[in-house]
Amino acid sequence: MDIATPIGIILALGMVVFGIGGGLASFVNVPSLLIVVGGMTGALLVSYPLGDILKVFGVVLKTFIYPLPAATEAIGQLVEFSQVVRREGILALENSIGSISNPFMIKGIQMAIDGREPSEIEDVLYMETEKLKDRHAKGSEILMQAGALAPAMGMIGTLIGLVLMLQNMSDPSTIGPSMAVALLTTFYGAIISNVFAIPMASKLKSRSKDEQLLYEIIITGVHSLVSGENPRSLEMKLLSFLPPSQRKPTLE
Amino acid sequence: MDIATPIGIILALGMVVFGIGGGLASFVNVPSLLIVVGGMTGALLVSYPLGDILKVFGVVLKTFIYPLPAATEAIGQLVEFSQVVRREGILALENSIGSISNPFMIKGIQMAIDGREPSEIEDVLYMETEKLKDRHAKGSEILMQAGALAPAMGMIGTLIGLVLMLQNMSDPSTIGPSMAVALLTTFYGAIISNVFAIPMASKLKSRSKDEQLLYEIIITGVHSLVSGENPRSLEMKLLSFLPPSQRKPTLE
Amino acid sequence: MDIATPIGIILALGMVVFGIGGGLASFVNVPSLLIVVGGMTGALLVSYPLGDILKVFGVVLKTFIYPLPAATEAIGQLVEFSQVVRREGILALENSIGSISNPFMIKGIQMAIDGREPSEIEDVLYMETEKLKDRHAKGSEILMQAGALAPAMGMIGTLIGLVLMLQNMSDPSTIGPSMAVALLTTFYGAIISNVFAIPMASKLKSRSKDEQLLYEIIITGVHSLVSGENPRSLEMKLLSFLPPSQRKPTLE
Amino acid sequence: MDIATPIGIILALGMVVFGIGGGLASFVNVPSLLIVVGGMTGALLVSYPLGDILKVFGVVLKTFIYPLPAATEAIGQLVEFSQVVRREGILALENSIGSISNPFMIKGIQMAIDGREPSEIEDVLYMETEKLKDRHAKGSEILMQAGALAPAMGMIGTLIGLVLMLQNMSDPSTIGPSMAVALLTTFYGAIISNVFAIPMASKLKSRSKDEQLLYEIIITGVHSLVSGENPRSLEMKLLSFLPPSQRKPTLE
Amino acid sequence: MDIATPIGIILALGMVVFGIGGGLASFVNVPSLLIVVGGMTGALLVSYPLGDILKVFGVVLKTFIYPLPAATEAIGQLVEFSQVVRREGILALENSIGSISNPFMIKGIQMAIDGREPSEIEDVLYMETEKLKDRHAKGSEILMQAGALAPAMGMIGTLIGLVLMLQNMSDPSTIGPSMAVALLTTFYGAIISNVFAIPMASKLKSRSKDEQLLYEIIITGVHSLVSGENPRSLEMKLLSFLPPSQRKPTLE
Repeated sequence: MDIATPIGIILALGMVVFGIGGGLASFVNVPSLLIVVGGMTGALLVSYPLGDILKVFGVVLKTFIYPLPAATEAIGQLVEFSQVVRREGILALENSIGSISNPFMIKGIQMAIDGREPSEIEDVLYMETEKLKDRHAKGSEILMQAGALAPAMGMIGTLIGLVLMLQNMSDPSTIGPSMAVALLTTFYGAIISNVFAIPMASKLKSRSKDEQLLYEIIITGVHSLVSGENPRSLEMKLLSFLPPSQRKPTLE
Repeated sequence: MDIATPIGIILALGMVVFGIGGGLASFVNVPSLLIVVGGMTGALLVSYPLGDILKVFGVVLKTFIYPLPAATEAIGQLVEFSQVVRREGILALENSIGSISNPFMIKGIQMAIDGREPSEIEDVLYMETEKLKDRHAKGSEILMQAGALAPAMGMIGTLIGLVLMLQNMSDPSTIGPSMAVALLTTFYGAIISNVFAIPMASKLKSRSKDEQLLYEIIITGVHSLVSGENPRSLEMKLLSFLPPSQRKPTLE
Repeated sequence: MDIATPIGIILALGMVVFGIGGGLASFVNVPSLLIVVGGMTGALLVSYPLGDILKVFGVVLKTFIYPLPAATEAIGQLVEFSQVVRREGILALENSIGSISNPFMIKGIQMAIDGREPSEIEDVLYMETEKLKDRHAKGSEILMQAGALAPAMGMIGTLIGLVLMLQNMSDPSTIGPSMAVALLTTFYGAIISNVFAIPMASKLKSRSKDEQLLYEIIITGVHSLVSGENPRSLEMKLLSFLPPSQRKPTLE
Repeated sequence: MDIATPIGIILALGMVVFGIGGGLASFVNVPSLLIVVGGMTGALLVSYPLGDILKVFGVVLKTFIYPLPAATEAIGQLVEFSQVVRREGILALENSIGSISNPFMIKGIQMAIDGREPSEIEDVLYMETEKLKDRHAKGSEILMQAGALAPAMGMIGTLIGLVLMLQNMSDPSTIGPSMAVALLTTFYGAIISNVFAIPMASKLKSRSKDEQLLYEIIITGVHSLVSGENPRSLEMKLLSFLPPSQRKPTLE
Repeated sequence: MDIATPIGIILALGMVVFGIGGGLASFVNVPSLLIVVGGMTGALLVSYPLGDILKVFGVVLKTFIYPLPAATEAIGQLVEFSQVVRREGILALENSIGSISNPFMIKGIQMAIDGREPSEIEDVLYMETEKLKDRHAKGSEILMQAGALAPAMGMIGTLIGLVLMLQNMSDPSTIGPSMAVALLTTFYGAIISNVFAIPMASKLKSRSKDEQLLYEIIITGVHSLVSGENPRSLEMKLLSFLPPSQRKPTLE
């Protein structure tokens, strides 16, 4: 998921640059870019509380930079921990906690080690899952709004350029270039919307589903650790969350 | 929430002014603005009962001018009142009521002091919450309709300008400026829709959710005051309405 | 509700006329208007059964011409009748029936006087309410369809004008005026859609909700009359249908 | 319902012809029509299984050619049959079956005469009703898709015409007429969509509701015939399906 | 279903080629095609995880290349197998398994022969059905997104062409051809969207419903085989899944 995003952006922008050919410089117009990006940002600030917008930047960056650990890997770890618990008791997990990278799993295991009630652990972890879902939903919503505002701001910029050009047509040789500049804001708005905002909103939705599934696997796994379930039956239970093609048991 | 709105409007309009550059005067055309704003207002009057439209102005102004008190602050006050009630009985709140700024909380506390039945207090406060929700929903709906009507009126204005220009093309030097003026209504319509109406409808929805949460906290708090609940357990109950990151207990 | 509609239409059309300025005559083109209105009507006849379209005209006219009686007034009358019933029995309402203007209330009271079963009265009145709701919903739907068809017909008219103009460009001085005429159908389509059809569909929806509330108040009131309920408790029950700001009891 | 469709089509097309005026011949361009109709048909074949598309033609034709028998007429017949059954037994309906024109009612009555179980008759008739509903829903969906594809194909045709024209601008006198031809596909697409496809989809939906109501009346009626219900109570039951204004009892 | 897709594509593209006439070569522009297809692919990679996009290609190809076996055929086979089971026991199906072409039915029969529990067989087969549904839903969604991105990329390409042309208008004779090339990306985007992406998404939805019905018939059939149901009653049960017109019993 992580790698397709930069590849996609590079491919789409690469095609645009390729289409432009040699005259790339004439497509770079900082004021035009400022109108579209600044106007869109301003309208987003009117649309959502500041806190939500800032949080979304974090969510998007985190989503696209850190790859989601594979569910199979998390299952493998949980089954391993389950064997440790069987042999040496739940406190022995203290030594394994350093090897976990997912903060959600760390939180769950730590609560298990601390001897919290299973129902309490579940409550806390489910609430985290809800918060994740809300953050992602809010993020998608703001990205979709950005995807609608960017072309609108592009059109406003083009209207500005057209009005300026129409008011000053004494020198016919400047009409073409002026109109070219006027069209650049529409161009920027279309790219921001169709290469960045709308596609990223789609991927955030996919990612959200995958991450929720991972969290649910971890919640089920931690619950089993606390109740001392048999590793083999735990593995079977956790693998049933995956599509059959990915169900490779690690215990023989 | 309160501060992001003017910043956003200033940023978006600032970008537009920056894009226009020196020729700002040629973008100010009072008749064009009247066509868009007047036409939009007229069509809104056809769309909604007069009372609803007037009420919406109030709702929007109130929403954007008065910041919503932080939920944490309301919780702090309610816990404090709960301690007062414990020590000196419910009637002692009479002295504290002057320190409350939120009218909804004043109403609830006043009813508690007056010795009304808990169920009656809840009924009245829940009905107020419903009314708030309806007012906000109606406000969003009317703002969205305005966001659809403004560009339509802008287009009608541009059509008027184009027809006038096309009927009188004897002097080619006037064509450009006439068309520039014709485009101004579309320009105004796009700005009203994308910088004001649609973003404000979005923020009203966010604000409505936050205010409903605040009201629910207050309802729960007043209920606890009347039933003489322990301040510590009240605080725990009220904090559970907040996302974990904001849960800072004030009682040690 | 009644007065805002003509004011809104006059305001919106007034702005359009103001925008046009002196050249109003050149914006009146009967054939263009016929294309848009006739084409829209034709496509509506293909869209809905003739009976439904005719009924909608009636519904719209009635809605916009007759103001809805205030709910408070209906409550006042019902409470008054309730006092009459208390003093002189249900048959005494025979004398009051002439003073009622709302046909729905007349029907309910008449059935009460005729000694029909309460459940039968309710059945009949609820069915009337359902019919009202259906009529209004159908009306909104047809107005929305008209609001979509008018601009489409406007565009078809403009295409006709453009094709005619393009086929005959030998005399350049006629190009401008021909194109101006071609744009008039788009202009008419936009006005019909955005000043009349879509806003009227919105208002019909608001009105429908208000009228359903009124009917529900009347149903509850008639039911109380038949079962000989106490006027004071009837008033309290009926006032609870209104938003608190309108709840002014008439009994002291 | 039946008559409004051709009237509507004639009115809408008549307005278009009236708008065109004398130059009708220049609006007839068989290749342009082929691009729009052929392209739309091709894209529909990609969109739906062949069988569904063919079936839809049948459904549409049948719907628009055969008028739906009035529900009151069906009720009259069913009440009459009920009297016959009362006097002479269910087998006496054998003589009346020739007078029925609605195939759905024939099927129901025939099953009643054949002595099938009431529950079996209901099952078969309800399944037929479901099939009717599905056929109509599929028909509306395909017509709506056609209504979206026709303008798209019109735009593709116009793009073809524009590109051809732009590549060959040596003779300025041909530019106008070439562009006129290019616009014809957009014109055809708009008419197919707004006069035929979308309005017919709307009417199919209305018709489907009416026909389902008729079928339900017949199912209830046949059920009553089999269980030997009193004609008067049957009539009352069947009339309750109609809006009050149409409820004219035939039994005195 | 299978044959209508290529016929539809050939018909639609044929109409386009026919509309173009002799100058087909001037409509082939590899860089323009690369901008649209490459840009759309890039934006799709940003929109969905790489794995999902690759899987969709498989789903689409499989759906459009392999025809879905007729449900009647599957019913015939299942009834035949049921007779075999009656005469020779479930293990005798081992010889028939080679004659089955549908992998889903093979899987079900094989599990039956292996003596798995009926409930376990059902679980596995229902999970497969769910996966099929998900794959198809994901496929439709990605195709719809492609159908939205292709015209957007076409517009971006046209903007590039327009800007390049406007910046270099010294030689008027090149304006027409440059603009023609600029329009080609919009042309390609419209064709990809309206002839391929959106119609294929529609057909995938139809196909998905048909395939789910087939799977449900097979699940019911395999369940009956395992429980040794009477062939005649099995046939009746399976035929009830089909519309009446297709219900031809094979057992006499």
